Amino acid sequence: MDKLTNYQKVVEEILRYYHRLSLTNPNPVVEDQILIDHENGHYQLLHVGWEGLKHVYGCPLHIDIKDGKIWIQRDLIDIEGGIAGELTNRGVPKEDIVLAFHAPYKRPYTGFAVG
Amino acid sequence: MDKLTNYQKVVEEILRYYHRLSLTNPNPVVEDQILIDHENGHYQLLHVGWEGLKHVYGCPLHIDIKDGKIWIQRDLIDIEGGIAGELTNRGVPKEDIVLAFHAPYKRPYTGFAVG
Repeated sequence: MDKLTNYQKVVEEILRYYHRLSLTNPNPVVEDQILIDHENGHYQLLHVGWEGLKHVYGCPLHIDIKDGKIWIQRDLIDIEGGIAGELTNRGVPKEDIVLAFHAPYKRPYTGFAVG
Repeated sequence: MDKLTNYQKVVEEILRYYHRLSLTNPNPVVEDQILIDHENGHYQLLHVGWEGLKHVYGCPLHIDIKDGKIWIQRDLIDIEGGIAGELTNRGVPKEDIVLAFHAPYKRPYTGFAVG
């Protein structure tokens, strides 16, 4: 399997895993969406809907694949090591992971790629 | 063309049109992303990136297609009549458009579908 296809597969698996977890809520009040766009390299989980009069619109997870790297744009998933840790556990090298939620000046100190 | 295929085409055209407009910015500081997921029925425009030390993460447009209807989840596009107007101009009947950014109790008064 080439690198891009492998990264698409790994990212989609992680997304689907956390999407399934959010679907186990027995009383969902909002919709838990999964967005998979291999062509443009974008992957998201979203909470969308209304809790009574309160509008809920949130993105707990957003990953992009571009220029041969996996960019974590947003990660509010509550696990030790974050989604970056899930990626390294699945064999993605740190130099192919960008913690894009950190400002560019911080990235050289993260141990991951700068972009 | 069946209704679903037509709605997918119309929504994708609108998305691509406004994505092209955002790409005409000669000095983009953040990335203007387009997400198209026909399988799950989700369509988005996003601004993602860093302006110096400021993190930018915004969704100006999010449309879903579900249960034979077009759900406008988010519309910050500055045009008269909104994206709902663009849809009706392209032949989508009001009863197939949900202004999902309005609370469910308001929707019966919008002239559009309630959900």
